[in-house]
Amino acid sequence: MKEKIKIGYIGLGRRGYGVLKSEFSEMSDVEIKYICDVYEDRLEKCKNFLAEKGIYTIATTDYKEILADEEVDAVVIMTGWSGRPQLAMECMRAGKYTAIEVGCAETLDECFDLVRTYEETGVPVMMLENCCYGRREMLALNLIEKGLLGETVHCTGGYQHYLNHGELFPKTDDGDARHYRLAEYIKRNRENYPTHELGPISKALKINRGNRIVRLSSVSSKSVGIKAYAAERFGEDSEYAKTDYAQGDIVNTVITCAGGETILLTLDTTLPRAYYCRNFCVRGTKGMMTEERRVVFFDGMEEGIENNEAEMYEKYDHPLQAEYMAEGARGGHDGMDWLVCRAFIESVKRGTNTPIDVYDAAVWMAIGPLSEMSIKANGAPVEMPDFTNGKWMDREPVVESKYCLDRVCEDRETSIFPE
Amino acid sequence: MKEKIKIGYIGLGRRGYGVLKSEFSEMSDVEIKYICDVYEDRLEKCKNFLAEKGIYTIATTDYKEILADEEVDAVVIMTGWSGRPQLAMECMRAGKYTAIEVGCAETLDECFDLVRTYEETGVPVMMLENCCYGRREMLALNLIEKGLLGETVHCTGGYQHYLNHGELFPKTDDGDARHYRLAEYIKRNRENYPTHELGPISKALKINRGNRIVRLSSVSSKSVGIKAYAAERFGEDSEYAKTDYAQGDIVNTVITCAGGETILLTLDTTLPRAYYCRNFCVRGTKGMMTEERRVVFFDGMEEGIENNEAEMYEKYDHPLQAEYMAEGARGGHDGMDWLVCRAFIESVKRGTNTPIDVYDAAVWMAIGPLSEMSIKANGAPVEMPDFTNGKWMDREPVVESKYCLDRVCEDRETSIFPE
Repeated sequence: MKEKIKIGYIGLGRRGYGVLKSEFSEMSDVEIKYICDVYEDRLEKCKNFLAEKGIYTIATTDYKEILADEEVDAVVIMTGWSGRPQLAMECMRAGKYTAIEVGCAETLDECFDLVRTYEETGVPVMMLENCCYGRREMLALNLIEKGLLGETVHCTGGYQHYLNHGELFPKTDDGDARHYRLAEYIKRNRENYPTHELGPISKALKINRGNRIVRLSSVSSKSVGIKAYAAERFGEDSEYAKTDYAQGDIVNTVITCAGGETILLTLDTTLPRAYYCRNFCVRGTKGMMTEERRVVFFDGMEEGIENNEAEMYEKYDHPLQAEYMAEGARGGHDGMDWLVCRAFIESVKRGTNTPIDVYDAAVWMAIGPLSEMSIKANGAPVEMPDFTNGKWMDREPVVESKYCLDRVCEDRETSIFPE
Repeated sequence: MKEKIKIGYIGLGRRGYGVLKSEFSEMSDVEIKYICDVYEDRLEKCKNFLAEKGIYTIATTDYKEILADEEVDAVVIMTGWSGRPQLAMECMRAGKYTAIEVGCAETLDECFDLVRTYEETGVPVMMLENCCYGRREMLALNLIEKGLLGETVHCTGGYQHYLNHGELFPKTDDGDARHYRLAEYIKRNRENYPTHELGPISKALKINRGNRIVRLSSVSSKSVGIKAYAAERFGEDSEYAKTDYAQGDIVNTVITCAGGETILLTLDTTLPRAYYCRNFCVRGTKGMMTEERRVVFFDGMEEGIENNEAEMYEKYDHPLQAEYMAEGARGGHDGMDWLVCRAFIESVKRGTNTPIDVYDAAVWMAIGPLSEMSIKANGAPVEMPDFTNGKWMDREPVVESKYCLDRVCEDRETSIFPE
């Protein structure tokens, strides 16, 4: 096992910079040998920040420099939505463990290519789906593993996050307008951000490890939210208000699994919302848990109970979460950023496959193009390819990763924290 | 306008008896000339109850007796799910205003037949969809009418009501086991109870009055909830546990409207639930309201607000609700039973069409058979017939009914209360 690894870090936009700051630059077993972005100002800012922490790094606009360096063990890709898988494949072919930020594929081919690249090179890739390591989501895994929800039947999840004011358009008119999402919203209509929900749900339903997604059906509402927002903010005659946006305001996708379970995903990003919510909900024959009212319910309890999550965390926290809390919480998003990044680093150090591996990434990223096809066909069901080529039936969890989410492991030998 | 009307009342099961007790027997402008049921014990019990209130009525097991009586103005049908539309059509052909309890059609033909019977006879029918008169649902109509939610884009609703313990099986082993729902759950898989949600949502989206439902797609989970419950309660070797149930535990139906709006309906009745909820939610370009967190939100408000319904009712109660409260609330389910029954009676007295008319009933009842088709075809989209034959484009609300839900009427001339 490696004591310390060297990484190259590509993409220093808002999210990329944030994760570098709060996660990777805080890890004593990680050397950030390179940072990379196409914008010089971002590189400068980031380099200065790291230098202030006593971390000296090479700043480059050319990612190929990173791939050519034999000392680099792993690459973290935090660039925009588009082109990420291609970059990941280049890294894998260069023999680097590769982490990619969450997102969808452009096409189904891209997902197949990613799988083939893994199978040909044997180099693991990991999607940094932080919500898999959310406390609530891990609680669900623990409850399921203990049999407390009975047989799992249905899950819901949503990316219910109002983006007009902040992600699609900057909050202030002098804000950084180099965001790539708006172009996506103009050009196409799909479930464009499924992994925050589908990630943890896939772990709950053992997708690619005993179960698989067989098909989905997506239906989109009309698209009026962005235009209405733009007319209000920039004026009815503004370019933004006159643009037609392809992306429907609400997209509902219903997924069917081989085991007969169903999953409801909702994309909800362009209409005013009272609150951010991932609408995480798990339903079983003996109980349910739901983010909406922050309730865990076991059959036989009195109906109508209010928020009891604190009590449930106390009793049933996932061992990984418990350890994280005990060691002193840190990192972004209540620790899930920290945990997912540690999961990647631990895999690199141990030389194992990753707990969110290429087959998980391929299935989750395929939701984008498949939902697009279904929406165009008025919600007609479309089949999910079996990227595992039948291996889903008896694939075992990556328990040696110590960050395994597919099976709860209470007996981790080593701490998840770097010394 | 008639001062007092005579009704025949058919179906004295739990719901039928309840509505007779709390609603119709409390109305001074209604004479309950007949009660009818196939079970003598129910007739006896009901007759005695009415007699104690000084109401004398004819008890019969033969509904034809009611239809033959020229004095009867209207018939209320509260029988089980099956055969209700046929009975309604007989009543309409006999010239009686007809009210039917909520439910689905067996087949699409049944919906067409109902419409043809109305068009041939000119006798109005009304579905007693009480949730159309729910305070929250009427608040939504008022907010929409005032433009406070902007352009309406998406609605959700669910029948999220755990039925295993009470409706599908009696609560106690000596309970009344003559419930008809279990047979439905054994035989078929569909969205079997959509109207509590779809009723108010249709009013919000002006279905059949400027808009229409064009298609739907339904996907069902596996069916394991009832079997697991039966095994636990009656033993694994019991008849109930050995039965195979066709009805999926969770059915999600996504509906598309002519105006590009979408509706998500969820049937959720056979898995343990922490709380009853109709999951009513309306989304627009300027705001939202949601039952889940009891929040009304207008764009610009601070995100993350908690339950503010009391304040919103104070400011924006539907005029009908305000009048109901002012006159002294009464009836079941916080008044919505009272209001929907009054809406029917007022239509009979005034000789107008009903505010939930044959076209509404046909569309809502068609969800059952259409969802069944879609589920069988793995969620393939199925088209909703246009029962109005094009009239939906410019049909006007029944404003003279004074219970109009399609347009908010603040200037009702007469009280909604019987003198």
